[in-house]
This record gives sequence, C-alpha cells and structure tokens, in this order.
Amino acid sequence: MTANFSCNTYPRPFTGEEYVSRLARVRAKMESQGFDVLFISSEAEMAYMTGYQAYSEYVPQLLVAFQDREPLLFLRDMDVCGALHSTWLAEGNVVGYAEKLIGNPDVSPYDFMLDQIKRYCPAGTTVGLDLNTLTAQNADRFRNALSGAVLKDSDSLVSWVRLVKSPAEVEIMRQAGKITSAAMIKAGEVIRPGVRECDAAAEICAALARGTEEYGGHNVLAPLMPAGTCTGAAHMTWTDRPYVAGEHVNMELGGDRHRYIAANMRSFSLGQPSDKLLRLHEASREGLEAALGVIKPGALCEDVAIAYGNVVNRHGFEKQSRCGYPIGIDWLEATASLHKGDLTPLEENMTFHIMLGMWVERDFGYVISETIRVSADGCECLTHVPRDLKINT
Amino acid sequence: MTANFSCNTYPRPFTGEEYVSRLARVRAKMESQGFDVLFISSEAEMAYMTGYQAYSEYVPQLLVAFQDREPLLFLRDMDVCGALHSTWLAEGNVVGYAEKLIGNPDVSPYDFMLDQIKRYCPAGTTVGLDLNTLTAQNADRFRNALSGAVLKDSDSLVSWVRLVKSPAEVEIMRQAGKITSAAMIKAGEVIRPGVRECDAAAEICAALARGTEEYGGHNVLAPLMPAGTCTGAAHMTWTDRPYVAGEHVNMELGGDRHRYIAANMRSFSLGQPSDKLLRLHEASREGLEAALGVIKPGALCEDVAIAYGNVVNRHGFEKQSRCGYPIGIDWLEATASLHKGDLTPLEENMTFHIMLGMWVERDFGYVISETIRVSADGCECLTHVPRDLKINT
Repeated sequence: MTANFSCNTYPRPFTGEEYVSRLARVRAKMESQGFDVLFISSEAEMAYMTGYQAYSEYVPQLLVAFQDREPLLFLRDMDVCGALHSTWLAEGNVVGYAEKLIGNPDVSPYDFMLDQIKRYCPAGTTVGLDLNTLTAQNADRFRNALSGAVLKDSDSLVSWVRLVKSPAEVEIMRQAGKITSAAMIKAGEVIRPGVRECDAAAEICAALARGTEEYGGHNVLAPLMPAGTCTGAAHMTWTDRPYVAGEHVNMELGGDRHRYIAANMRSFSLGQPSDKLLRLHEASREGLEAALGVIKPGALCEDVAIAYGNVVNRHGFEKQSRCGYPIGIDWLEATASLHKGDLTPLEENMTFHIMLGMWVERDFGYVISETIRVSADGCECLTHVPRDLKINT
Repeated sequence: MTANFSCNTYPRPFTGEEYVSRLARVRAKMESQGFDVLFISSEAEMAYMTGYQAYSEYVPQLLVAFQDREPLLFLRDMDVCGALHSTWLAEGNVVGYAEKLIGNPDVSPYDFMLDQIKRYCPAGTTVGLDLNTLTAQNADRFRNALSGAVLKDSDSLVSWVRLVKSPAEVEIMRQAGKITSAAMIKAGEVIRPGVRECDAAAEICAALARGTEEYGGHNVLAPLMPAGTCTGAAHMTWTDRPYVAGEHVNMELGGDRHRYIAANMRSFSLGQPSDKLLRLHEASREGLEAALGVIKPGALCEDVAIAYGNVVNRHGFEKQSRCGYPIGIDWLEATASLHKGDLTPLEENMTFHIMLGMWVERDFGYVISETIRVSADGCECLTHVPRDLKINT
C-alpha cells in the first residue's frame, strides 16, 4: 500500500508498515474464520484499517478486505478526497459513488458498490458481513446481489483485532491522555457556583480542541456533565443553568488525537460534600485502586470487576453496570467487557476505560475512571488527574 | 402524558400538549400506512416523540408507539433517569433493562424488550419496523419474537412527520441559529495565518457551547474545517498545523439548542483570494440568493436545486451534490432532498440546510450555506452571517 496523491499534506500518525501489519492480522483472523472476503461497514473499523480521518458515516460507505488483493474503499464522491489525504490506499482503491445516489428513494449507493464488488465474490466465496452494524435493509441488498456467495455474520471481526494496540497506537493514546488530563484539570477550575453550565462546557470543549502545546486535539466529543439531581443520569450534556452551591457535577470527557480517545471521569463537589457523596467517593476510589492492582497480562476481564466489587461491597455499595470496556478509535470498542462472566484474558497493550460510574439513586450518582494500558507486568494509566474529590466554592 | 418524577429540575422547551400533538400526527400516519404498532429505533426520532435529551444510542434502546395506549420507552437502566428528567412520559412508561445485558454475547437487551412487548402484538397485528436504522441482527430478533405479527418496513415514518416543524420548534431553531451565527462570526475572527488549526477550533467550540447570554448551547458537534489542499474534502475536522497565508478554510458548524441544530457554512480566505476562489464565491453567492428566492410553500424541492444550478452553470460551474436537506433534531433528517427529481412540495415551517458546498477539484473547494424556514410566503433565514468572502491577514 502506497499513497500516490500528489497534494497530500495531511498529517499521518502511522507508517504504511503499520497498516500492512493490521491488514495481515485481519487476514489471519479472516482465514481462521473461513472468510475469503470481509465487508467492513463501521467507520471506526475502516479508520483502523486505512487511516480514514473524515466523518461521513451517516451515508453508505464500505471497506472490502480480501485475502488476495488490496482493500477497496467505497465512499460518496465528496468524501474521496478525505480518503486520499488521510489513508494509505492507492488512488485506484478508493472508489467514489455518484452524488445523485444520495437522498434518492429509487436507488441505493449499495447497488452501485455491489455491482462493483460481485465480480470478486463468485459462487462459493465465503463473505463476512457485520450484521451488527449493517442495517436490515442493506443486509438484504447484500443477500440479493451476492446470491451465489456464502454470506456469514463476521460480528465485529476487525474490532477483536484492534483490541490489542500496536506500540505506535499506544503512543498516540498517551498523547490523547495528555489532552484529556488537561481538559479535566480545566473542568476542575471552571466549575463553580454561579457559573452557567454552558460557560463551563465552553472552557472544557476549548481545552479538548486545543490540547497541549505539543499535541493538539483533533475532534471534540461533547463532555457529559450532569449536575445536581441529574447526577443520577449517565449520558446528559449540560444546560444554561448556573451551578448551585451544595450540588455536585459528574464529568466524563475524552481527548481525541488522530481519532484515538482516552477517557476520564471525575466528580466535583460545589461546597462541602454530603456524607453520602464522601462515602461513595472513598469506596469508589479504593475500588479503583483495587481494580488497577489486578490488571496484568493473563488476568481475566472479570477479575477487574471482582476486585472492584469486593471493595465497594464492603463499603455497602453495589455496582450494577460493568467496570469498563476496550477503548481506542472513536471511543468504545464493542468486544470484551469488564464484568463478571467475561473470561477474556488481558494481553499486553490492550487499552481499557476503567469506568466506575455509580448511579446509585435516580437523582444521585458519582463517577471516577481512568484509561489504562495493560503493560508487560501490570497497568499503565494514560490519564493523569488527581483522584481526590475536588471541592470548589 | 404527564411527568411524575419528583426531583425534576431539567429544562423543558416544549409543553406536554406539543408532544400530544406530535403523537397524534404520528398515529395518523401510522393509520394511513396500516400500522397498529410502531417500533422507533432512531434516537433523534425518540427525542422528537418524547423529549429525550441524553445520548445513549450506542446501546440498544427502543420507543414503541401504539394506536391505543401511551408509548413505552425501553432504555438501559443507567439511562432511565435521563428519560425521567427530560421526557414527558409517565414513570411507568420508561422501562429499564438490566445492566448485565450490556456487553453480553449470550443474550441481547432486545430479548428482554421483545418479551415485554410481544403481549401488545398478538397474531395479526401490523407492526412497523424501521429497517433503515435497525441492524440486521436485531431485525432478525424482532422477526423471531413476533412471528405471529405482520412486520413491515416503516422506513423513517417519524422523520417524515418531523419534516414540518411546530411554531415552538421553529422558535428553538431560531435560538440555535443565533448560537450558530455567533460561532461563525467568532471563526471569522480567529482563523488567521500562524494560528494552529486546533487553537482556532478551540475558540469555535467554546462559542458553540457558550451560545449567547440568553441562549446557551447544549451540545458541541465538532466543526468541519478543512484548510488548504484539504478544502477538496467535505467532512474533515482540523489538525495541529498553523494556517498559512494564501490558503483558505471551509467552515461548517451548527449550534445546538435543546438538541435542535441550525447549520451554517462559510469560506475564509487567508490573504488575497485567488481568481479561482473569487469566481467560485461570486457564483455560489449569487446561486444561494437565487435558491432562497424560489423557496415558498408549494414550490418543489427540485426547484431550489434548479434555481441554484441555473446560476452557477452560467458561471461555468456545476454542483454534483444536492443543494440541501431537512434539518432539525441531531442535524440531518433523511427524508426529502433538494436535488433535481425530488418533487416533494415545500410547506410552511419545513426547515432546510441550504448546503452549497462545491468541491470542484480534489484539492479545492468552497462552501456557503444557510439554515432556513419556509415561511407563509417565502423564506426566513435562521442563520445570520455576512455572505462576503471574509479575508483575514
């Protein structure tokens, strides 16, 4: 794979060899699962395989991986340039479809793509389709167009490959972690009684975009920052309301570097915390340390949840939700899961968001988390923010 | 529908009557298409029907609308509180599923939901499924669980209803337009040679979150702002690179107010624009005015594209992509489309992003746009930014 687009000035964090190695790992997994051809319909997985850095998943697009030829990337015409700037694919392997296929009820871009692809899928070819991301309408288009081939669910195959990061990916995630840490420290400075929630959000979003002097942020994913009685909710942004003394705020944010995310969560108390909040903080912080303490190659995903659960149960709390998930391109990877019953063994250079949000009542919750890498003999934190319950007055 | 959650302090932009009216319109469309029950799987459509203001679409969730009973909203347990704060559903109509169903390969949250729902879908019930948003895996779960019912593709039914906004929605979109305009004016101030792209992005994201003194922003969707040779691409964010005199920047951003978006695009020239850029700007600006000039109730979607096309063709340009799309909750609504061949008639209080990006070469493009409302006798712009080609040195 070599880029041959003459006006290419877009920064590329990875070498061509990195992508050759990722493709080899995907092909090995395809072979072990019996796939000759793999259709990749998640943009995060496309980015992993090619370096694609644009955001166009709201229209049909598809990456096709083969055992015996270079991948083909199908995009809307106006997105081809984004691929030529950011990916390592040769120009001939990025195929645009006509703009007139967008918003057209009579014909789908997938009809065009399938017309191009079916020559590579003769009768008897085993084709992997990710039925977990393809919509039902589009899966039916694939089934009709490739009726001679054997179509099987490939179920996030590429995401299982990206679970273990390369050293180069780890370095980018360390950079993302620096952005994340700077933004969380900024949050701890600007969230104060009397400040409008949206004005605090402005400073935090700016910090996520700005990054550090060395490493700029490359995207802003809106921080989740419910306050007051909304701390019982996990996924709300912010309002116009000024913060009120006596309440607390649950902050979840993630810096983005070349599309890789490191996430972090902290709660801030606006004034003296209640006993209930302090008790939950102490239990969670001790639980976090216990969870980090068991992480090393060979430990199981469930060991992290058990170590955490043992501590917080002793303090009289119980966490219903899992203790985290793999993190990388575009935040969450839907593969292994840090909960009781998941026996996936940890390997060096897996990266997880150890997510210890506790939504204990409908109107009351507390959050703390770190993004970590499984190191050769333990655990490296990629986010660096004090774990005290910060009190702002 | 009445909210009965005692600790509710979250702002609600719409009355309960507004939601009663939206539900009535959806039920009328369900009836005309023969649906007894409708499964709504897009979060934007859920937000339209209920007011849901959290962001949790990455896990399974479902709104079920009936002809003869109140809607049921199924969410992950940790998201129930977000619904109780932001929606008008009674507490008993928000149903949480257990956290242990997340990240669990053996059982899906949809199995739980379908177990609850199937009593309402006896043999012979006609059920609408949106096969355009449901994944293939999950559509199969629905087909298996509801084998006695008649399942049909409802294909964005709710989005066709939300195409015409209520007066209350228009007012929220006007507020979003003020946020958008403030952010675009800020962009025109901060994008200058020598400034890192990420530092400009920081100021713009802050403006999107902060909004105005009267109307705070409620989410930040990362601006798309390719520069230099990347202006040939439509959907890229930014890099760490400092801007260089002589290049130009294509900015696309949208303010968010209570989840409603008003979008706007402008190009900025860093120094004296090239003749090519000036010619494209003059043609596009004149084309924009022609497009806005034909908008009124009764005109067709294609009329907007034809009016624009006539002008730019006369200047020697041709736009391949459509001239815009309906906009509202979470940006784009995938229904009508402003391109030749779309005969949907415009109605008062439809809102569109008149999107006149021209990506004319692989390394060269220009953008201009407005978010508009179809008014009683013409067109109201919801975004207010000078249409000159701003030159920053």
